[in-house]
Amino acid sequence: MGSQFKRVAGAVTAPRGFRAAGVAAGLKPSGAADLALIVSDCEAVGAGVFTSNQVKAACVTYNQGILAQGQPVRAILCNAGQANACTGEEGERNNAQLALWVGERLGIPAQQVLTASTGVIGRQLEMAKIEAALPRLIDSLSPTGGESAARAILTTDLVTKSTALEAEIDGYTVRLGGIAKGSGMIHPNLATMLAFLTCDAAVDPPLWQQILKEAVDLSFNQITVDGDTSTNDMVLALANGQSGIPTLQAGTRAAQALAEMVVQVCIHLAKAIARDGEGATKLLQIRVQGAPDDRSARQIARVIAGSPLVKAAVFGNDPNWGRVAAAAGRAGIPFDSRRLEVRLGDFLLLQGGMPLAFDRQAASEYLKRGDPVTFTVDLHQGSGQGVAWGCDLSYDYVRINAEYTT
Amino acid sequence: MGSQFKRVAGAVTAPRGFRAAGVAAGLKPSGAADLALIVSDCEAVGAGVFTSNQVKAACVTYNQGILAQGQPVRAILCNAGQANACTGEEGERNNAQLALWVGERLGIPAQQVLTASTGVIGRQLEMAKIEAALPRLIDSLSPTGGESAARAILTTDLVTKSTALEAEIDGYTVRLGGIAKGSGMIHPNLATMLAFLTCDAAVDPPLWQQILKEAVDLSFNQITVDGDTSTNDMVLALANGQSGIPTLQAGTRAAQALAEMVVQVCIHLAKAIARDGEGATKLLQIRVQGAPDDRSARQIARVIAGSPLVKAAVFGNDPNWGRVAAAAGRAGIPFDSRRLEVRLGDFLLLQGGMPLAFDRQAASEYLKRGDPVTFTVDLHQGSGQGVAWGCDLSYDYVRINAEYTT
Repeated sequence: MGSQFKRVAGAVTAPRGFRAAGVAAGLKPSGAADLALIVSDCEAVGAGVFTSNQVKAACVTYNQGILAQGQPVRAILCNAGQANACTGEEGERNNAQLALWVGERLGIPAQQVLTASTGVIGRQLEMAKIEAALPRLIDSLSPTGGESAARAILTTDLVTKSTALEAEIDGYTVRLGGIAKGSGMIHPNLATMLAFLTCDAAVDPPLWQQILKEAVDLSFNQITVDGDTSTNDMVLALANGQSGIPTLQAGTRAAQALAEMVVQVCIHLAKAIARDGEGATKLLQIRVQGAPDDRSARQIARVIAGSPLVKAAVFGNDPNWGRVAAAAGRAGIPFDSRRLEVRLGDFLLLQGGMPLAFDRQAASEYLKRGDPVTFTVDLHQGSGQGVAWGCDLSYDYVRINAEYTT
Repeated sequence: MGSQFKRVAGAVTAPRGFRAAGVAAGLKPSGAADLALIVSDCEAVGAGVFTSNQVKAACVTYNQGILAQGQPVRAILCNAGQANACTGEEGERNNAQLALWVGERLGIPAQQVLTASTGVIGRQLEMAKIEAALPRLIDSLSPTGGESAARAILTTDLVTKSTALEAEIDGYTVRLGGIAKGSGMIHPNLATMLAFLTCDAAVDPPLWQQILKEAVDLSFNQITVDGDTSTNDMVLALANGQSGIPTLQAGTRAAQALAEMVVQVCIHLAKAIARDGEGATKLLQIRVQGAPDDRSARQIARVIAGSPLVKAAVFGNDPNWGRVAAAAGRAGIPFDSRRLEVRLGDFLLLQGGMPLAFDRQAASEYLKRGDPVTFTVDLHQGSGQGVAWGCDLSYDYVRINAEYTT
């Protein structure tokens, strides 16, 4: 389905009517860019999906409150350096203050400003530094600033994650852009998965939320670096209508096309995050088919992608079907193991629940080429299917996460 | 409660009326002992708890069938080398043959013989070697053979795991012994957690099963090395009445004392398994209190003990309360994060959901001493409590699991 979409430059500023910027406010000890702003020139429909962690950062509960009101939004401010989680009432006040400052300076209501934070948890935001950097950030806003914003939201990520697609929908040229940061956790609890999407379609608000939720289930919820979800994870999406397309309604082919576009952008960003997992040398892709339903297939795929034993075997170039089968079996989904089939790339390793002879040398070579390494698991029980992504488990993962001292 | 019990030597042969042995049948390439037999001199009440993995070894389904009949049992035969999982009907026939052979040679019905296998999955049992070794194994049976059997069930474990307790119950001296092997998975899918318990109390059969199930929930189900459960995991328990005590019935103080004894033995073995996790340098102990109920507390404790980030921080001697709090928050148990409290040993790190100043150097020293490293998490929401055990995540875990090639 992705073939109907054209990849374009610009990330979150590819869609019309969006400006963005990233500057260094001094929140990161490295001096790298650490404050990003995305602004729509007009009011936009907002949607959000948030961490299910019981320990939520101030920005998470704040955004949930804003979006629950169902009013238009205009901006997303994101800082990298302090996560503003486990910071109590002071943290909540600081977060609200950020929205007030941005609103004042942009001349929009504070409740049209969404916020996001990533970084060390348990530390208060460095408010003076952010306040001092805001005028420069706003001056830097540019219709080509998408990549600059993409850099400023990173913490321990090695590469920026961004993409944008264009499609003809009902005769209108619609663009969708996105940037993300990974679940890197090198420093104590730089634990955040963030993604921000912009779109110039006009969309019915409940439909936009539904489209985002379903896309997140197929993408960001299907990646795992180490199974740890964070206090700050969120995906935000703004749709501002600047393409001129009439407001999309649920159940139309046009809405379906937009939904597919959102899925493609989210999967692109999710795979980029998995590929950039801490210490990762390979992207791991798990396809499950023949499951009772899609939900079960996705669940099994996630458990396999997250198995430390599978991940270590992939790092070691070991075509270890047994670890894949055992991980599938503990996903909580009943299946008949006598029908289980496991493939690695094109190598059929297990069929009818029993191992087959295969060319180990060639299979190990396939693992060495890697990137992605694909295991396909077929339960032969139904038509449910799903994909999950992860990365291998390397010495560097341990080094990165053990050697840092708070 | 443990103080009423006396630790005694002998492992599974500490209780009266049990003999055991372990010999080398040539199933392990190393030539180490790999075939163990435990026999009760008289009929015993059997109980078992088995893996929840959808992919089950032949011995698992076989034992489940035997124990479902509720008839007495006499023996447990365990081999280490081939797991006899993913081996189809031939694997089932081989497993049944083992019971027939042991039954014939001991002069007892085959359906009084339980079986257990651990080792590489997807390979058929080396039946000729086992048949050849059986006479020697049976000749070696000894009332002091418990430790010999403990060695023969190991695969990649570094140390044997065994214990035995003695207690006065209703004026009778009752003994309970146990041996276990860990969830080491160095070789492809030597994935098994096995434990065998013997007891010379007489116990009502449903009560014996209930006692075992509850003890497993507090012990073996609360340890995690890497979250992967295996195709072969099982805990078997035989009670043969040779202490002379009248059959224990549910609801009595004597039954309660026996249940507590089983819990103590299971926790001892479970901690030994966690401490001997692959590459482990430290035993990690997570205590959760103030939870809505015990079940929730145990769930949260398990998730924390299994978090790769927490495990890597412990390896790195980093008093990282944030990773503990974030892991607690994703256990699926609702709680108010503003009441959350985290201690490391005696160091109070987080209170009321916010970090406190603490002596980082001293806390890091505590982590270095390790063994066990104890985190205590208090939700301040109820009286539920639970404990889980794990180990740290080291370079050796990755080396062991990546460098081996099938």
